[in-house]
Amino acid sequence: MTVNVGVIGVGMIGQDHIRRLTNVLSGARVAAVTDADLDRAQTVADGLSQVKAHKTGHDLIEDPAVDAVVVASWGPTHEEFVLASIAAGKQVFCEKPLATTREACENILDAEVAAGRRMVMVGFMRRYDEAYRAMKEALTSGAIGAPLVYYSGHRNPSVPPSVTTEGVLVDTCVHDVDVSRWLLDTEVVSAQVFSPRRAGHVPESLQDPILLMLTMANGVIVNVEAAVNIAYGYDIRGEVLGETGTIELAESSKVIVKREGQHGGRVPADWRERFIRAYDVEFQEWIDAVAAGHSTGPSSWDGYAATLVCDAATEAYRTGAPASVSMREKPDLYAVDASADGHGPTGTD
Amino acid sequence: MTVNVGVIGVGMIGQDHIRRLTNVLSGARVAAVTDADLDRAQTVADGLSQVKAHKTGHDLIEDPAVDAVVVASWGPTHEEFVLASIAAGKQVFCEKPLATTREACENILDAEVAAGRRMVMVGFMRRYDEAYRAMKEALTSGAIGAPLVYYSGHRNPSVPPSVTTEGVLVDTCVHDVDVSRWLLDTEVVSAQVFSPRRAGHVPESLQDPILLMLTMANGVIVNVEAAVNIAYGYDIRGEVLGETGTIELAESSKVIVKREGQHGGRVPADWRERFIRAYDVEFQEWIDAVAAGHSTGPSSWDGYAATLVCDAATEAYRTGAPASVSMREKPDLYAVDASADGHGPTGTD
Amino acid sequence: MTVNVGVIGVGMIGQDHIRRLTNVLSGARVAAVTDADLDRAQTVADGLSQVKAHKTGHDLIEDPAVDAVVVASWGPTHEEFVLASIAAGKQVFCEKPLATTREACENILDAEVAAGRRMVMVGFMRRYDEAYRAMKEALTSGAIGAPLVYYSGHRNPSVPPSVTTEGVLVDTCVHDVDVSRWLLDTEVVSAQVFSPRRAGHVPESLQDPILLMLTMANGVIVNVEAAVNIAYGYDIRGEVLGETGTIELAESSKVIVKREGQHGGRVPADWRERFIRAYDVEFQEWIDAVAAGHSTGPSSWDGYAATLVCDAATEAYRTGAPASVSMREKPDLYAVDASADGHGPTGTD
Amino acid sequence: MTVNVGVIGVGMIGQDHIRRLTNVLSGARVAAVTDADLDRAQTVADGLSQVKAHKTGHDLIEDPAVDAVVVASWGPTHEEFVLASIAAGKQVFCEKPLATTREACENILDAEVAAGRRMVMVGFMRRYDEAYRAMKEALTSGAIGAPLVYYSGHRNPSVPPSVTTEGVLVDTCVHDVDVSRWLLDTEVVSAQVFSPRRAGHVPESLQDPILLMLTMANGVIVNVEAAVNIAYGYDIRGEVLGETGTIELAESSKVIVKREGQHGGRVPADWRERFIRAYDVEFQEWIDAVAAGHSTGPSSWDGYAATLVCDAATEAYRTGAPASVSMREKPDLYAVDASADGHGPTGTD
Repeated sequence: MTVNVGVIGVGMIGQDHIRRLTNVLSGARVAAVTDADLDRAQTVADGLSQVKAHKTGHDLIEDPAVDAVVVASWGPTHEEFVLASIAAGKQVFCEKPLATTREACENILDAEVAAGRRMVMVGFMRRYDEAYRAMKEALTSGAIGAPLVYYSGHRNPSVPPSVTTEGVLVDTCVHDVDVSRWLLDTEVVSAQVFSPRRAGHVPESLQDPILLMLTMANGVIVNVEAAVNIAYGYDIRGEVLGETGTIELAESSKVIVKREGQHGGRVPADWRERFIRAYDVEFQEWIDAVAAGHSTGPSSWDGYAATLVCDAATEAYRTGAPASVSMREKPDLYAVDASADGHGPTGTD
Repeated sequence: MTVNVGVIGVGMIGQDHIRRLTNVLSGARVAAVTDADLDRAQTVADGLSQVKAHKTGHDLIEDPAVDAVVVASWGPTHEEFVLASIAAGKQVFCEKPLATTREACENILDAEVAAGRRMVMVGFMRRYDEAYRAMKEALTSGAIGAPLVYYSGHRNPSVPPSVTTEGVLVDTCVHDVDVSRWLLDTEVVSAQVFSPRRAGHVPESLQDPILLMLTMANGVIVNVEAAVNIAYGYDIRGEVLGETGTIELAESSKVIVKREGQHGGRVPADWRERFIRAYDVEFQEWIDAVAAGHSTGPSSWDGYAATLVCDAATEAYRTGAPASVSMREKPDLYAVDASADGHGPTGTD
Repeated sequence: MTVNVGVIGVGMIGQDHIRRLTNVLSGARVAAVTDADLDRAQTVADGLSQVKAHKTGHDLIEDPAVDAVVVASWGPTHEEFVLASIAAGKQVFCEKPLATTREACENILDAEVAAGRRMVMVGFMRRYDEAYRAMKEALTSGAIGAPLVYYSGHRNPSVPPSVTTEGVLVDTCVHDVDVSRWLLDTEVVSAQVFSPRRAGHVPESLQDPILLMLTMANGVIVNVEAAVNIAYGYDIRGEVLGETGTIELAESSKVIVKREGQHGGRVPADWRERFIRAYDVEFQEWIDAVAAGHSTGPSSWDGYAATLVCDAATEAYRTGAPASVSMREKPDLYAVDASADGHGPTGTD
Repeated sequence: MTVNVGVIGVGMIGQDHIRRLTNVLSGARVAAVTDADLDRAQTVADGLSQVKAHKTGHDLIEDPAVDAVVVASWGPTHEEFVLASIAAGKQVFCEKPLATTREACENILDAEVAAGRRMVMVGFMRRYDEAYRAMKEALTSGAIGAPLVYYSGHRNPSVPPSVTTEGVLVDTCVHDVDVSRWLLDTEVVSAQVFSPRRAGHVPESLQDPILLMLTMANGVIVNVEAAVNIAYGYDIRGEVLGETGTIELAESSKVIVKREGQHGGRVPADWRERFIRAYDVEFQEWIDAVAAGHSTGPSSWDGYAATLVCDAATEAYRTGAPASVSMREKPDLYAVDASADGHGPTGTD
């Protein structure tokens, strides 16, 4: 069975998912697209075979030729399309963020709980990265005892001048937040932000680098460092300090070159080079789950938690004081962490 | 367009390719299978959807529902199925070896040249491994000047007691031979074999480890080391010594763990762990090429060369002296190395 | 000219320095020893050649056969012996801490400034470690732009049960404090302490690991992590995040071993294995300076700063709030950082 | 007791040893020097304190103020000065080679055996390098089973145009020969030389790189690669393939720098940077042994073996065929390998 996917939003990331569904993965095809820019949607549809361009996301969701939905539109629109997909009884893959406000996220939780089964997967692709999976596997194996501190370094070569400090806390650090929750299997209870000396070559309005400290429910401290104009490459760092050992992400270079007095390897140029495989694996697991009639991976609950923590981070940045994160009680629907081992069935339907 | 693939031989490797074509890759499906063991063929067909089990490879090749053929049967049968595929005008992917004798390989070359276009891809999957591709890319970029010596280490945790020294030279070292030709873009002119102290835990009849020295047409010396009972893991090493630098394959571990007085990473357990992605990439490139109406990757010429070099290696082992490799003149059909950069079009039709 | 050294305190560290002065380094000999335990002093003297055992540190300092003094006694006694050495006009090497209170340190500063020349070197041996020197050299070269954040990890396999949290902040973190000041060439203005989840196998009274955050005068944030029962080894980590790059201490293992599914290297077992050479280099530089008639390396000012910062750290731990560090104005005597590059002349006399 | 050393030959290496004996090590001083260039000897003596410049090596050896002798003169003169030192009953440290011909080496063996005790140490400093010692220790521990193949890579940034292929085999590879014998604890029985493609930027008369294959008495094969114009640095490589694992020399860089798309470390610029500590340790062990009345480390037998193997290598290069190494029976005097563990007493007197 081939899963017919409708894609809402065909900007850079949406088009990348279309390429993936069309040319890379097994078991799916793109059946319909739409975009706020209708011409762009039509152009994308024309470049494919037998793909319908819809006027709105709602039209697409209601199209009987669409089995499942990918939401890759502008963040503030996520809520309505995810809710509509749930209402239509169609599995939906939503790029992060799940939604931009606590209220919107809670609306989605309510709808999904009312539906009685998981229907939403949120695009936290790091959980599908081989290195993070190896880290979680080593940690879960007990190789270093219980985790005590986690360091999460997020280094970007550059960002557009329009990016704000809040944008870094919300759009960049969200990945560190999700990875921390997933890796440590616990929630964030408070966030605090520290502002070190700024890099001289970034706009004065941007606090870069910025340090975000998360306190987890089990007492683990997570130190996130976001440095988004570091120039030298896209460098994602992670280290768990455990009771009797540590686990770090290894360098990803495939060869070591020696020349001109140095031995060394390549740092990825951008997120694409670093995480392209994770996106493939993430989507293949989603397609396989959808074909089997259920959801998988990061849930609405994970999306909700990430949004609340990022809200707390921006509050902490604004006030200079720790900000606590208060979440509603976790519905039973999300009790089993389907993606804890990256392979588990979700099995709610 | 979906490529309908017929698979001849459904042993371990054949079944792995079926899984890949069915569940992992884009643009192909398995349409038919066959095997010397008819029951096994039927069982495999029954486990899939809409797959026909044929009595013979020839029946499968002639089946109009089959667009292209994968030959994964016993080595000595490769010649006849590849020739039949060429005769039927169908693209064929042949697992290594192309054929087991010089004469059989030359028959294939003759048939393909007569057909006037490339129709055969040989399964040298290392050319599709990210690390080898990065090595070739760095070498081709001129980063270390011209290559002078290449070290190719092939370490297997263990082999069955039935494996012979000749088997190691032919079945194991064939990968090192192909990678050397591809990486260095030149032919092997002679082979010599050296027998170091044997590992105490291997059967006395097996020379393990064994060293194979290849002299290339441009003077580069390749030192191949095959150690097939090394116990500690599956460890594929490669290093190019260039005029002004070196390039080595990096370790493939994704995380570094520190515990019990050590820091370190994982060595792959077997070829599957090390090369599973290379097989995926290799097959996707073949499917894409077939869909576009041509072949790609390692050619019959590459298969022919590998067989001749392995023959020379076994002769050198028997005689203790260097053995030269004499190849026929290279037909124009193979003049352009389609896979030199791993991406090139084959463009012969 | 041979420098005749008197050693006050012949416990473990004192005896190690005696071994070093006697058997390893050039240009010095031990001429006299003393200890609170007179028997121990006599025993040590008897094991050497032509060494006098004195009843008190003051007797030793006044002995005309003693050219220079090493203070390796209990911390609270440092002040009086350093002051006496200055009064006697003899160069003195004082193990850390310079003194245990702000007042005591200021008394030493006053005495040295009154003497008009540097006479005190404090034993912060990390400044003499090859790896730290390479880090400072790379940073100073401008390879990564200005430093913005510094991570300093101090991991000890275990500590005696008697060690307290305050003890970790004062005796362990003091090295991280000094290295941060030296590496970043700026003072600490405030300290804050965070308490992550505790390792289950340490006494409940000990906060282990513990995180110490220092804010430097130039805005750089230093994140110190002390984990003193980490079991896996003695692992000293350091990483500078600069504007356009990073510098980390490399692993110190001399060989990489592959066996049993792993590739890896050794983590040092203890501080001795990790820093033995740094102690040798530190002492040789001191001997050479003394022979040339002056001091070198970490000064009284550095010892004073370290004591104040550790005081602030314990206050921050007690209160849970940031504690500021207020230092007196820096006397001209200490204006030139003699050890900035590890090689500089001190040139005050 | 201070060992009074006389140094014969005050060229670059001789002066470096003088610096070491004077300013770095414990327990020795330079008492006398001489050189074929008498002015140079006088200049060196004048730059030191209380050092006599002798007209000849023999005068120096006979000087009662000289306790022990360092021979750092031109290779062909080694024999006479070593023999004279033995005759004078004075311990002698002889830079490699022990002597330049089989006959000369055998004369020294005869003299030393007649003296009834070891009096000669040969300057194979790699045995004192921490990395080689860690390799030997790991190998001896049984961590990887018995050694089967050893790779020894000797890469020099450049050599003067006057250096010949024979010079590389004799002066460069001699270190690889000695390390192989020491590490594997067995003798070389034959040598063979292979000539790969030459680097384009070296004189046509020089075969660079060059491969030297040694077969050891226990069957181990040693593959030496000498590349002496590799430009990128001074890179000494070593890897033992054992029955169940491998041991490699790690990179020696102290820090890892990330910048401009790369992560990496420094390759040593020259032998001095790489081996300066090994020279210090080697000499300190010799001084300590001399002070205790005996010799230590690489013996005349080791020097003899190295000379014979290098002779065989040049013969193999000339003839293109393997050349066997025939040694006389090993005198009992050398039966115990004093330096096997780098620490052992020689204990023959």
